[in-house]
Amino acid sequence: MIVITYRIETTGSVEAMAEKIASDQSTGTFVPVPGETPELKARVAARVLAIRTLSDADRPSWPEAPAGHGPIRRAEADIAFPLDAIGTDLSALMTIAVGGIFSIRGMTGLRVVDLKLPQEYKAAYLGPQFGLPGSRRLTGVHDRPIIGTIVKPALGLRPHETAALVGELIESGVDFIKDDEKLMSPAYSPLKERVAAIMPRILDHEQKTGKKVMYAFGISATDPDEMMRNHDLVLEAGGNCAVVNINSIGMGGMAFLRKRSGLVLHAHRNGWDVLTRHPGIGFDFKVWQQFWRLLGVDQFQINGIGVKYWEPDESFVESFKAVTTPLFDQSDCALPVAGSGQWGGQAPETYRRTGRTTDLLYLCGGGIVSHPGGPAAGVRAVQQAWQAAVADIPLETYAKDHPELAASLKKFGSASE
Amino acid sequence: MIVITYRIETTGSVEAMAEKIASDQSTGTFVPVPGETPELKARVAARVLAIRTLSDADRPSWPEAPAGHGPIRRAEADIAFPLDAIGTDLSALMTIAVGGIFSIRGMTGLRVVDLKLPQEYKAAYLGPQFGLPGSRRLTGVHDRPIIGTIVKPALGLRPHETAALVGELIESGVDFIKDDEKLMSPAYSPLKERVAAIMPRILDHEQKTGKKVMYAFGISATDPDEMMRNHDLVLEAGGNCAVVNINSIGMGGMAFLRKRSGLVLHAHRNGWDVLTRHPGIGFDFKVWQQFWRLLGVDQFQINGIGVKYWEPDESFVESFKAVTTPLFDQSDCALPVAGSGQWGGQAPETYRRTGRTTDLLYLCGGGIVSHPGGPAAGVRAVQQAWQAAVADIPLETYAKDHPELAASLKKFGSASE
Repeated sequence: MIVITYRIETTGSVEAMAEKIASDQSTGTFVPVPGETPELKARVAARVLAIRTLSDADRPSWPEAPAGHGPIRRAEADIAFPLDAIGTDLSALMTIAVGGIFSIRGMTGLRVVDLKLPQEYKAAYLGPQFGLPGSRRLTGVHDRPIIGTIVKPALGLRPHETAALVGELIESGVDFIKDDEKLMSPAYSPLKERVAAIMPRILDHEQKTGKKVMYAFGISATDPDEMMRNHDLVLEAGGNCAVVNINSIGMGGMAFLRKRSGLVLHAHRNGWDVLTRHPGIGFDFKVWQQFWRLLGVDQFQINGIGVKYWEPDESFVESFKAVTTPLFDQSDCALPVAGSGQWGGQAPETYRRTGRTTDLLYLCGGGIVSHPGGPAAGVRAVQQAWQAAVADIPLETYAKDHPELAASLKKFGSASE
Repeated sequence: MIVITYRIETTGSVEAMAEKIASDQSTGTFVPVPGETPELKARVAARVLAIRTLSDADRPSWPEAPAGHGPIRRAEADIAFPLDAIGTDLSALMTIAVGGIFSIRGMTGLRVVDLKLPQEYKAAYLGPQFGLPGSRRLTGVHDRPIIGTIVKPALGLRPHETAALVGELIESGVDFIKDDEKLMSPAYSPLKERVAAIMPRILDHEQKTGKKVMYAFGISATDPDEMMRNHDLVLEAGGNCAVVNINSIGMGGMAFLRKRSGLVLHAHRNGWDVLTRHPGIGFDFKVWQQFWRLLGVDQFQINGIGVKYWEPDESFVESFKAVTTPLFDQSDCALPVAGSGQWGGQAPETYRRTGRTTDLLYLCGGGIVSHPGGPAAGVRAVQQAWQAAVADIPLETYAKDHPELAASLKKFGSASE
């Protein structure tokens, strides 16, 4: 049995709308047809398990309600779909119980807020190949967050220009570096040339220091065959990670890649906001991330505290909890990646609000590369901020004998704290 | 150059928001970084071409505006991205210029309303393999709409039950039959068994009458390899069409399938509504359908007049125009598929409002199978409705000497007209 919780909003009856979802998304049609026997209904019909009334909404989420409409009622409805009706195919689940619902008339808002999958899904998907333990093993970082940075500017650097920047970042002591998610394989920076320019620097540094920086190359491509060629380029050159734009390639692209992948798959969720930003419409991240973890995301970008985007801190905290809560067991969890406008100043609040854990990848772009003392000082400042957070020492106090953190506070502190 | 038109909504400056989209989605970051030279900017930076002010909105689309906010300003902004910055990869286009924008802070609504792709995209994608001409050739239907029906109930029939219904539908004279999009390959009706039960009936009928009914089997699967096995089952059994749930399989699944496909690909867009139903957020269909046509959709479901869903008629009319307007030339057009609650009564308005064409697939579920005289009478009633529409004869008049149409009008007419 698959149980989905929908938050329904309607000027009509929430009970009728819940019944309509259950009917339309299983056996239903607009006129009775031959063949709809009680036995068939028992086999596949969805049914409403529970309805919990919520307070009325002030205004409709979709502006469809006719003028002079009455109260906008809201409720959460738990609807059960027999596993037999859907099976374990995620595209069937998406089609039947999720995607199709948004076409239903008579609602002024509809959001999928919870999803409970039965054990059968565990066996049907590969899940993360590396996750937290693989990411720790490959970076050699334990007992603190993996600290990462992003090559900027987002677009436009040629491979040799990127490689020069990357060389400096490698020397900074950072654990992880990624291509901006917008950088894939444009003509001015074909992935093949970028890999050829960057990987020798990673490997040289490993030879010299024993530390292999994890570099996530942007391998996404519309054509899965091309994406696999990109994957192979990275793997054959000794790389171990890739940025994957999950919404852009879609579930098919992700499934295809995961089956064949030897790389840590670092998911960027660009496009997700349109599915979630309006709180009355779409999906909670808690629901949507389940699909992608089953499909094999190892590292999941989920914004962070005090980001430059629209997303409120509370939403990040819930996303962090979502990706680190087992669907079936610990092995299906993804490593949370906090990013966007991070520089270390958000370490104490991130630590406090996510269960006092250092099991995350903490991504700082400008926060590292624009540090007044250069990237190495930027990395040290971020490490110091996390040391302070874990020790419950205020950053200002810790900065007194940690000059890199002090410089960070001076440069970035006014903007973000 | 790729030109995208965004409809921006903000309590701030629309000009600033347009500049922010251009900057964030190409070179931008939250702090200036080394490497952002004027030469680099010229190579890849997006730029605002034009801004057209619209009337203020009554309320924010996303309920993010702070209490006591001022007027909600709206404008359409045309932004040009150099082709070099993105290339011709659709997942790069989606990531850079579309998906990423919805995370930007400071807007209360944002919608992509137009997209103009340069000629280079034509060569980069296969596009539709069959489209209108292939659909006409394979069904042998010319000079009137291809008339189709859907096997109902949506879920729960076993293969022999489905095949029995299909046998009756084949005899009805219908041109096209499809699995409900929710039916893929569940345990109670594995695709392999469904194909084995149905295809002999299609082929027998062809042997006897010369008419091969086009049957669209639900082949969607999360794993592209499995989807290809499904495709092959249909093709090897003599089938010629498949229902593909494009949003569920994603662009990767679709690209993979199209490269290897020998079937007419009939797209169901379930899930699309969440991207478009709020008029201030997401995508116009006009934009979104371009991705899928380039990827190879032959037949595109776009609702119809007087549907059972939320979508207004005007939106259907615009969608019809969208899929039949060449992106580059006629070969990239999809066959429009009108469906949902159709029974023939909508033929006159469909014909009148879509440029007086019969180049469409007209899908009637209950409208055919629940006709009082049975499916064959249902099919004749729909054909008669289209004859009347093309001849500009009111349905009531035409029904006087067309009893099947008369029975349809009596049964379905009160509900929909």
